Amino acid sequence: MATLTISSKNYSSWSLRGWLLCKMAGLAFDEERVPVDDPDAKAELLLLSPSFLVPRLVLDDITVWDTLAIGSVLAEIFPEAGLLPADRAVRAHCLSISGEMHSGFANLRSALPMNIKARYPGFKVWAGAQADIDRILHIWRGSLTAHGGPFLMGARPCLADVMYAPVCSRFTTYDVPLDAKTAAYRDRIMALPAMQEWIAGAFDEPEELEELDVEF
Amino acid sequence: MATLTISSKNYSSWSLRGWLLCKMAGLAFDEERVPVDDPDAKAELLLLSPSFLVPRLVLDDITVWDTLAIGSVLAEIFPEAGLLPADRAVRAHCLSISGEMHSGFANLRSALPMNIKARYPGFKVWAGAQADIDRILHIWRGSLTAHGGPFLMGARPCLADVMYAPVCSRFTTYDVPLDAKTAAYRDRIMALPAMQEWIAGAFDEPEELEELDVEF
Ligand SMILES: N[C@@H](CCC(=O)N[C@@H](CS)C(=O)NCC(=O)O)C(=O)O
Ligand SMILES: N[C@@H](CCC(=O)N[C@@H](CS)C(=O)NCC(=O)O)C(=O)O
Repeated sequence: MATLTISSKNYSSWSLRGWLLCKMAGLAFDEERVPVDDPDAKAELLLLSPSFLVPRLVLDDITVWDTLAIGSVLAEIFPEAGLLPADRAVRAHCLSISGEMHSGFANLRSALPMNIKARYPGFKVWAGAQADIDRILHIWRGSLTAHGGPFLMGARPCLADVMYAPVCSRFTTYDVPLDAKTAAYRDRIMALPAMQEWIAGAFDEPEELEELDVEF
Repeated sequence: MATLTISSKNYSSWSLRGWLLCKMAGLAFDEERVPVDDPDAKAELLLLSPSFLVPRLVLDDITVWDTLAIGSVLAEIFPEAGLLPADRAVRAHCLSISGEMHSGFANLRSALPMNIKARYPGFKVWAGAQADIDRILHIWRGSLTAHGGPFLMGARPCLADVMYAPVCSRFTTYDVPLDAKTAAYRDRIMALPAMQEWIAGAFDEPEELEELDVEF
């Protein structure tokens, strides 16, 4: 049996990534929510494990947290799911842009936090976050051109698409202007059945989760 | 032929990680320095590739940047080097704490930037950075206990040790108090031949690199 611990579906971009990886791998798993709406329960959880980060996956004798680590582990166990591209050079490209998302884009993250339910038409993006957006669009265009689309590494969605999926939601929420090619990519990711299932979950979420003290 | 692009040996913690991975893999590679001391050359390099991040490895038909991606690619090509532990559960642990270093510890990074040549006895660490230090020491103690030492995942140094290697240098530079077990681990990493070779390179580096405009 497998259990994935996540936090808010509306706000937690890392939880979304971990959850999409499990879905795309075809893993059967239970979802466990960090009890963010109960400060005592949360404090207890954090005491058990200082800096208990979500997403966290427990699968048989394996405990793995951190989205990239979850991606590697699942790619190994479910190779046929295509989480990592089969070609070595394409795989290296996939890992590079996934790593760049994992450790970078701090300005985008803080200025345009994921908020699936919200819409801010005409949102004014400051220059620092715009530089992150420009880099992301450059990565998307380069990948879609190099590998022929419709996903970043070609015919099938993979780890790289998962890493950038919360960005697609942010671009929708904050009304970020995109050219035709990158807008089509954003819409393609937003329309994925797993993505739609997660978004429905965000809309079902009780509002007190808005008080969340998580890093998005 | 392989080429690794890096920046300052004294200041660039990511460069150190990428370089250690190549050394530990046993890869024969040329080192290329981002010409940080020549603003025109640097601007040109950055124009060629918006947000050209180092370390970056070119190996046959593969181009890979980002330390974790470099680690994955090298682990695949040189499995006998042990960059990733052979046991699946240990590998998941290695990837989890490597991912945590890759995307986290922002306070430690900004308050205690890597500076191999410097020494600040009695350096006063602020609370935010101390929380990062506490979490790192918790990870080290847990790993050394779980896998029996002397390295984080057991008998051989692996990706996880590389990811935390710049922290060992920072703990030395900023005189961070450690208990006997974690101090011994820090010293063990600092004494690795590859680490000593890199440190010697930092001492040989011209001082104008102090003007570097890199993210550490
Ligand atoms: N880079 C990590 C980020 C994980 C992360 O920052 N998770 C946040 C929530 S999105 C967290 O667990 N914060 C602690 C808390 O909410 O208690 C990953 O890839 O999983
Ligand atoms: N998380 C990335 C970090 C890479 C990074 O931030 N590199 C910095 C230097 S340490 C960089 O290349 N900055 C751009 C520049 O110096 O031009 C990795 O794992 O490689």
